[in-house]
Amino acid sequence: VEKLKQKIAEEGRVLSNSVLKVDSFLNHQVDPALMDEIGKEFCRQFKDSGIDKILTIESSGIAPAVFTGLHLGIPVIFARKRKSLTMADKLLTSSVYSFTKRERNDIAISGELLAQNDQVLIIDDFLANGEAALAMADIVQQAGANVAGIGIVIEKAFQGGASKLRAKGYHVESLAVIESLEKETVKFYSESEEVQL
Amino acid sequence: VEKLKQKIAEEGRVLSNSVLKVDSFLNHQVDPALMDEIGKEFCRQFKDSGIDKILTIESSGIAPAVFTGLHLGIPVIFARKRKSLTMADKLLTSSVYSFTKRERNDIAISGELLAQNDQVLIIDDFLANGEAALAMADIVQQAGANVAGIGIVIEKAFQGGASKLRAKGYHVESLAVIESLEKETVKFYSESEEVQL
Repeated sequence: VEKLKQKIAEEGRVLSNSVLKVDSFLNHQVDPALMDEIGKEFCRQFKDSGIDKILTIESSGIAPAVFTGLHLGIPVIFARKRKSLTMADKLLTSSVYSFTKRERNDIAISGELLAQNDQVLIIDDFLANGEAALAMADIVQQAGANVAGIGIVIEKAFQGGASKLRAKGYHVESLAVIESLEKETVKFYSESEEVQL
Repeated sequence: VEKLKQKIAEEGRVLSNSVLKVDSFLNHQVDPALMDEIGKEFCRQFKDSGIDKILTIESSGIAPAVFTGLHLGIPVIFARKRKSLTMADKLLTSSVYSFTKRERNDIAISGELLAQNDQVLIIDDFLANGEAALAMADIVQQAGANVAGIGIVIEKAFQGGASKLRAKGYHVESLAVIESLEKETVKFYSESEEVQL
């Protein structure tokens, strides 16, 4: 999605060598038309993978996930970062370490929402070290379901998450792959460089 | 939206006289096609109100809000329930008391996202006592912007929030209005009863 890379280049703010802030269209303010494009692209990439359900984490994963769900015609589950009072027993939980926030948090979903053998597409806004995606994959496996793919809006390739996930055999698709945030500059992998990898 | 009422009747679970659980299509698992219908309906109701921006709160407000934003062609801001490290200074905050969770929480948005005189549509999944909507309205006013309308997916009329908001002059539209949850039954206001109010 070329429009996504443009938005990152124009509106993204590099806060450090590892933190990119995209609060104007993804993480705080959301651009619905761009999210719809993102949903269409994930649909194109995963439409032949027999996906039954999408799993994401609140809050920033929800917008790209619901548009992907709309275009694939399937439901979206968002994992909660803390337990909610109206959540049933039979929770499936896993833990995520956030390097940004330097804290470990549980994520949880109600076990009723995933069925055995469900083919699940994991969607998230960012992929850094892969902790969040691995925790979601753990929850999918606890339910006896299968991770059919992982769709990422922005991958920070230099943090190694995608390599870690692919080494475990997951099919990972990232819409924008960032090679480096050094010198306060967003450097994307170009298509030709990706071929060389 | 008749389909919304059907979903509530079929899948909603009444946990007490005041708590309705709709985790299968709105609060935990999300039905994207239904959210798209909801977005279209809010668009129909507010398209002549000159709206510039939508404001909602994470996490359950995001799905209905982003589809409304898509159909109105405008950005969506979601208020955060706790401060995030990558959030800039210049936060606008307000506090919300949750009767369900019996705790008071701050909500916050970055002051950069709302401009003076912006016409803002507030969207939320539930309206109970009106605390969350009032906190969002407070933030809009702190920014010097104007609340042009409030769109609610499910209103629990017996908790008085809508009356409170209308008494302050706000234009409130609720897609499903629940009169009572007594006897473990969802009782909707019928169209004819609404006229009588």
